[in-house]
Parts: sequence; C-alpha cells; structure tokens
Amino acid sequence: MNPVERLMAATAEDMARVNALILNRANSHVDMVPELARYLIDSGGKRLRPMLTVAAAILFGKGQGSAINFAAAVEFMHNATLLHDDVVDESDMRRGKPAARMVWGNKASILVGDFLLGQAFMMMVETRDVDALGVLSSASAVMAEGEVFQLSKTGDLDTTEADYAEVIRAKTAVLFEAACEVGAMSGGADAAGRKALALYGMELGNAFQLVDDALDYGGEAGTLGKNVGDDLREGKMTLPVILALQSATDSERAIIASALGNAEASDLEVHQVVAIFNRYDTLGKTLAKAQDHAKSAIAALAELPGSEMKSILADVVVHSVSRAS
Amino acid sequence: MNPVERLMAATAEDMARVNALILNRANSHVDMVPELARYLIDSGGKRLRPMLTVAAAILFGKGQGSAINFAAAVEFMHNATLLHDDVVDESDMRRGKPAARMVWGNKASILVGDFLLGQAFMMMVETRDVDALGVLSSASAVMAEGEVFQLSKTGDLDTTEADYAEVIRAKTAVLFEAACEVGAMSGGADAAGRKALALYGMELGNAFQLVDDALDYGGEAGTLGKNVGDDLREGKMTLPVILALQSATDSERAIIASALGNAEASDLEVHQVVAIFNRYDTLGKTLAKAQDHAKSAIAALAELPGSEMKSILADVVVHSVSRAS
Repeated sequence: MNPVERLMAATAEDMARVNALILNRANSHVDMVPELARYLIDSGGKRLRPMLTVAAAILFGKGQGSAINFAAAVEFMHNATLLHDDVVDESDMRRGKPAARMVWGNKASILVGDFLLGQAFMMMVETRDVDALGVLSSASAVMAEGEVFQLSKTGDLDTTEADYAEVIRAKTAVLFEAACEVGAMSGGADAAGRKALALYGMELGNAFQLVDDALDYGGEAGTLGKNVGDDLREGKMTLPVILALQSATDSERAIIASALGNAEASDLEVHQVVAIFNRYDTLGKTLAKAQDHAKSAIAALAELPGSEMKSILADVVVHSVSRAS
Repeated sequence: MNPVERLMAATAEDMARVNALILNRANSHVDMVPELARYLIDSGGKRLRPMLTVAAAILFGKGQGSAINFAAAVEFMHNATLLHDDVVDESDMRRGKPAARMVWGNKASILVGDFLLGQAFMMMVETRDVDALGVLSSASAVMAEGEVFQLSKTGDLDTTEADYAEVIRAKTAVLFEAACEVGAMSGGADAAGRKALALYGMELGNAFQLVDDALDYGGEAGTLGKNVGDDLREGKMTLPVILALQSATDSERAIIASALGNAEASDLEVHQVVAIFNRYDTLGKTLAKAQDHAKSAIAALAELPGSEMKSILADVVVHSVSRAS
C-alpha cells in the first residue's frame, strides 16, 4: 500500500462516519443543491483534508467525537472553494469531468458554494468547541483573502516570490493547517501537539500546492483533470513563471508575457514557455522548494511520540511531493 | 422624526461602535478587499439589520457587549449576499450606483463576498456564544438554499404562492429573524422574549420583501436604485406575477410569459405586464399580504413590557410597509 492508502485504511472507520455526514448534510429539499453538491463531492477526490483531521485526532488518542464534524466541515469548506474557484477561473474541467458550473451554471455554483459554507459552519457549531471554531472561521476568511490577492496579481509580471508564498499559504496551506489543528484539538492534544500538527498541515499544504503548480506545466492532460498550461492561460503567477521571469532575456520575457493570461494561447505557445522554464530549470526549482516544505512538515512531527499514525503522516508527505517526479 | 430615524437615534451610541467594527473588519492588506467592501458597505444602506440586532439587545436591557459583534456580523452576511446576488442576477446597479461587480468584476465580487462571510463568522466566534452562533450559521445556510430555490424557479410559470413564501422567508426573513433573535439573546432575553423577537424579525422581513417585490413594478426608477421591471426581466417569480398568472386569460398569460426572463424586454412590454397586474390588482394584493405580515410582526411584541424601544420597533414595521403606498 502507498502511504495515502495506508492513511485511508487507518482512518476508514471514522471516515465512514464522515462520509455519511457529508452525504446527509449535502441534502436539501431544493433538488439542485444535493445534485450539484454530490456531483462535485462524489467526483473522486481523495478527501485528503478530512482524512488529515481524523488522523490528527487519532494520533492524540481520540478519533470519533467532534473530529467527525470538523472533518466533514473541512471537506465542505474545500468544496465550496472549488465551486467558487471554478467560476472565478472559468474552468471547464474538475477532477477529470466537466466542472459543476458547466452542468448547472455559474449561478448555481456560487449559491451552492455558499450553502456548503453555511452547512460547514453549522457542523462546527454543533461541536460547541469555540476555539476550534475560531481556527476554522479564521481559515475561511484568510482563504478568501488569498484568492482575492491571487486575482489582483493575475498577469502581473512584477509578482514576487514572497507574493506567491503568501498566495499558496492563504489559498491552500491554511486549510491543511486548520484541518490538522482542529483534528489535534478534538483528539485532546496539548498546546505543543496542537502547534506541531498545525505546522505539519501548513507545510504539507505548501508542498502540495507547489507540486500542483509544477504539475500544471508538466503533468499529462487528463491525469489531473486539467490541461497543461491552464495556469498560464489564466494568467496565474505561479512559481515556475516567477522564477523564469527573474532570469529571462527580453525576448523570452516577451514570449512569456504574450502567452500569460491569454485564454487563446496555442499549445505551441505553451510549449515555448515550458521550454524557457526548462532552460532555467524553474519546474525543478519549484519541486525543490516543495521538498523543503515537505522536510519541514516531517520535522514538525519530530517531538511527538512514535506511533503508526505518525509514521503514516510522515510518509504521506513524501508521497505527496513524489507525485511530480 | 419618522420611525426609522427614531430607531437610528435610539441605537446611535451602539451603532457608532458597530460601524467602527465594520470598517475595521472590512480591512485587509489586499487592497481590493477594503476598496470593494467599503464601496458597497458605505453606499448608503440604512443598516437596518444591525440596527435591529442592537435594538433587540437594548429592548431587553443590554446594548453593547456581544450585540456589537453580532450586529456587524449580520451586516457582513447581508453584504456578502448582495455581492453574490448581484453576480447571480447580473445586476448593473445597487443602491443607486453601479454594482461592485461593474467596477471590480464578478470574480472579485464572489471572493470578497466569501471574505465578508468568513469575517462575519470570526466576529461571531469572538463572542463565544455558541447558541447565537447556531442561529446565525443556520441562517447562512438557509439563505443560500433559498437563493438556489429561487434560481431553480426562475421563469417557472408553475411557481406557487407557497414556493414564493418559502423563497422570501429563506432569502430575506431568516436574516431579519436571526438579527433580532441574537440581539435579544445578547440582551439577556428569556426564552419567550427570544421567541417573540425572532417572530417579529421574521414577519418584518416577510413584509419587507413583499413590499420590495411590489415596488419593483411600481416604484419610480432611481428611487430604489433599480429600474421598474428588473424582476420581470430576470424571470423572478414574485407574488405579483404568480397572482396574475392565476387569473390571466390565455393571451395575457402569453404576454407575461414572453416578457418573463427576457433581459431585452422593452419598457412597453413591461408596461403591458403591469397593466395586467393592475387589471387583477396583484400589486394591491401583494401589499395587502405585506400588511398581514406587518400585523403579525407587531402582534409578536404584544406580550413584552411597554418601552420606548418597543414602540419604535412597532412603528418601524408600519413605516416599512408604508414605503409603497
């Protein structure tokens, strides 16, 4: 079994309850709500975030309990974000099939996203754990803020590495962080344990997004359900682009600038940009940065007592960054 | 002074703190966030919902305290909804000026709406009042569900009065209800007082939306910052349409059906539809229904001890339904 499969096995009992709760809370007498929500939620995502919540709770000795609600809430928050992101990015595909907005339209995607967010908060409130609510509601605001920041940097050739680090922390790492932190809290972790899991989640999330951003240029079409160069055509200032612009000649810069944010850029233009990336090894450098974060994630677990779950969580990090190599 | 001005005077001290909190929490280092948020929030809305929260708290003896946070959260929830609604409805104007989406685009409107919702939850969590959090998070989910229901009924000639009642309860009345209920809770109301204010808010909200839906056909362009017949062109199945379809002849039905949901419907076509409404007095019947809800709102206050604030709240209802006469 690979590490994610081991994580799935180790959380299977709790995740069965999480999945039942997800199904139940995606329900509504308004037919379009469960239709759209389940289309997305059942579309083959690995449910990594809620598994991390449950795993963190188990790590500290207590699965079940409020971890079930937090895990389902985290997955709803994630899916609400995906629905809104696909509208914002005008994405046609998600997880290898047409995005929900292509089937039900942008309007329904926006509103069902709002519904999932509301349901997520209801599930959190049911735990009556105000501190964990603080972690998750803060994550929710930071995620949206990060998406606005990313939007404001669209096609901005002056975007810095620090800007990028802020974007991926806000739009991805913060939810991984919160997922792990509230899992640890509901599992009975002390302050040090809670902090360790929060750091683990954040660094795993950073590594995860860096790999995604490299894969967007290097993965094969269909594998991730999105086409090579989508980020480029959407004008997303990800690390491979930022690093390339740092070294590019004027003519290379012109090639990148012309394709960036051009929804109609041809495959040839995308390949020309990727050739520039390869010239300066920016995909390799992006993946090296992912490895740095992966090491930090594993190091965050160091002080915790050894256990099967701890070793799974460490191996999940290694597996997660190995997707792109 | 009219009743809303009296409400403003009676809540002025608390509302100064609410407004400061709103300004503060709409802030962000991402420039687009406060720019867009303040454009909407400072655009001359009366802040009726947060005033109701504060007024309900004062009614039971305690303003300030957590009522300030709840009031600001309610206003953020409302503004998040407006941002998303304007995208969904493709509205050009809001409160007499271009909608935020016309200035910053749909994408920013979606994401800043999400940000405001996240900030709303953070403000609620800070009160550590889990019961009030339950009321507001439930309202958030129900509101989104109601918007999806309304969307699914767009242009549906078979929409019933019961469907309409459900839509306005979910998309409008529930937030008025929650605003009043959490105000009462933070003011120290007992169970009966909390229930009375929840009912007051709900019935005021129902009356308010019915009047809005009548005004959409009868108000003068500019007065409400939207043009006569917008709901018709958007295909919204509001009560004036539903009642007209119940009595319409085949040819009248054809006229309504042809204009409904037709963004390009001419003013002449809209006037033809309004002429049908007038033939069956459906605007009058809609306003009569608003009056019924207004009476129920006032009746909900009956058991509470007399006070200046109670008399203001009752008069606000009367004033609110008199907008359209």
